[in-house]
Amino acid sequence: MFANTPAPPYYAVIFTSTRTAVDDGYGQAAQRMVELAAEQPGFLGVESARGEDGLGITVSYWNSEAAILAWKQHAEHTDARNKGRAQWYRHCITRVAHVQRAYAFSPPG
Amino acid sequence: MFANTPAPPYYAVIFTSTRTAVDDGYGQAAQRMVELAAEQPGFLGVESARGEDGLGITVSYWNSEAAILAWKQHAEHTDARNKGRAQWYRHCITRVAHVQRAYAFSPPG
Repeated sequence: MFANTPAPPYYAVIFTSTRTAVDDGYGQAAQRMVELAAEQPGFLGVESARGEDGLGITVSYWNSEAAILAWKQHAEHTDARNKGRAQWYRHCITRVAHVQRAYAFSPPG
Repeated sequence: MFANTPAPPYYAVIFTSTRTAVDDGYGQAAQRMVELAAEQPGFLGVESARGEDGLGITVSYWNSEAAILAWKQHAEHTDARNKGRAQWYRHCITRVAHVQRAYAFSPPG
């Protein structure tokens, strides 16, 4: 649910998307990508939400630019990305960012 | 829906949260904060989603660290944050990141 990230600095890949009406295995593919990402060197965690209006935000966290690039070039991920662009996503934007600081809050008690 | 951000670099504030069961004006306050943020100098846009499992992700985009700090210190925002911590949020984490590159995709045609 929450990504259990270490103290910064680290990297975040912010993926924002809207879906088409096409299913064709989307749910399984999305789940598979999360599992596969978690096996990659440098993966630190992932957080994901899609609201009722259809906007989805997935943020994955990585320990280096090299880890992000390796994941981008992973063959199965590349196949899923191509399928996503061809049929699953109406519009999407990927932003790569360097996380500089983080503040967590949980209520006392 | 999507934030219409300029070409990088710029900054992102990634706010991930889970809610308590307390309503007490949460929806209005959240909407008000989006409207108020949009009036601040340096605001570039915001994207927000909360999924069925309760995890919410809001990413706001800013043109400078100074703009982020000014928004953090805004009196009405500070009041809302305090109320959020006291009753609206079960757990939350704020990450401040420097967006280095971005790739958008829309299908042709």
